[in-house]
Amino acid sequence: MRHARIAWAGAIHDAIEVNGQLRLADGRVPAEGEVVWLPPVKAQTVFAVGLNYADHVRELSFKPPTEPLVFLKGPNTLAGHRAQTPRPASVKFMHYECELAVVIGRTASRVSRDAALDYVAGYTIGNDYAIRDYLENYYRPNLRVKNRDSATLLGPWLTDAADVPDPMNLALRTMVNGKLTQQGTTADMIFGVAQLIEYLSSFMTLGAGDVILTGTPEGVVNVNPGDVVVTQIESLGSLTSLIVADPRDGVRE
Amino acid sequence: MRHARIAWAGAIHDAIEVNGQLRLADGRVPAEGEVVWLPPVKAQTVFAVGLNYADHVRELSFKPPTEPLVFLKGPNTLAGHRAQTPRPASVKFMHYECELAVVIGRTASRVSRDAALDYVAGYTIGNDYAIRDYLENYYRPNLRVKNRDSATLLGPWLTDAADVPDPMNLALRTMVNGKLTQQGTTADMIFGVAQLIEYLSSFMTLGAGDVILTGTPEGVVNVNPGDVVVTQIESLGSLTSLIVADPRDGVRE
Repeated sequence: MRHARIAWAGAIHDAIEVNGQLRLADGRVPAEGEVVWLPPVKAQTVFAVGLNYADHVRELSFKPPTEPLVFLKGPNTLAGHRAQTPRPASVKFMHYECELAVVIGRTASRVSRDAALDYVAGYTIGNDYAIRDYLENYYRPNLRVKNRDSATLLGPWLTDAADVPDPMNLALRTMVNGKLTQQGTTADMIFGVAQLIEYLSSFMTLGAGDVILTGTPEGVVNVNPGDVVVTQIESLGSLTSLIVADPRDGVRE
Repeated sequence: MRHARIAWAGAIHDAIEVNGQLRLADGRVPAEGEVVWLPPVKAQTVFAVGLNYADHVRELSFKPPTEPLVFLKGPNTLAGHRAQTPRPASVKFMHYECELAVVIGRTASRVSRDAALDYVAGYTIGNDYAIRDYLENYYRPNLRVKNRDSATLLGPWLTDAADVPDPMNLALRTMVNGKLTQQGTTADMIFGVAQLIEYLSSFMTLGAGDVILTGTPEGVVNVNPGDVVVTQIESLGSLTSLIVADPRDGVRE
């Protein structure tokens, strides 16, 4: 089953997909044009794994990591399907990143990789924008690269784990204004989903609603205001975003 | 005025300090022995600034940063006054960090340093433990260093900004088992409170309940299970924590 969280008719609702349509728990079917899509999970901690596809590591001229490179995302970054993501005028290179997003379903501490997938509630699509200008370092923790407002999209749907039998064999692709720019498969992750859960839960406790963004393959190109970026993952759907000029450029209070 | 958040008599309460005692809004005065102290703010995004005191930078053999080194903390790390912080048996060096914690009071975007302190709700004491073993890099974003469960204490009180006329001139000190081990002053910060707010709000939106941990001066020593660590900041009070053995050492599910 696929789940969404939407704002509609003055309130926030949980919804499911029935025959390609959104349906609320009470049976109402909102018109899609009236709906604002939110991230399909009330995200708790959001982890992002850097440099987790060898081809993307080469693309950025780094060495492949020997341990997962994980950093955290703030809630200001999160947005849903059809979000508008501001691009500051002052930067030279801003790229999308199509990523499999893993949503944890229950408390996980010191979980082995063999048991790890039992802790997954489901999967969604992430598009985690980066401002390349500030990416200086292997660990690139710089918030200026990765923690902009509305720059981490999740959605449209949370697909139950039961409906994704092999998360390590899903095609990913991104289209900018309808043109294919990024293509890969989750099979190429350096650290797979189960390994990432094993790793993180080895030194901290994961909880329901935690999200792990698992990295992106090669093919990240610069985007500009007006560009429509669609990230797709096999079995999970298609997540759309629009790049806009930063309305705060030049403003200071 | 000083504010606290406590668990007492089956519920979570906001409290204030009256004559050195906790008092609830309805006037009840809980016995302190029955109280569990929580972080005094329902923290939203928690930022931590690394290497923000020159003497501590030297102590760790790094170069002083030219731009604030900021990373995020997950909610799993947060704990209040009198928290117990597990120390894994497998690590060689775990140190406390006494830090001035700045609590943002309202939405802040592109705020100048001159106006920045107007956005502060108040201040509290942070003690942000680090596992030194995994600290490899200037940017040290490694979650294994800085995102352990119950390893970031805040409290006991949130002191209103109005009662802290000069946050850049406060003495900090830490005592381990009653012995003074760390001593400094917020006057020695490389990037001051107003600069940090200017910096962060220049590329992202800060909101009420966001917390900025502003770094620690030199004098961080290894701590072990059984150690009582007290971090103090002038005008803000005294925050106590107990180091315990990690109950999950060796456990795997």
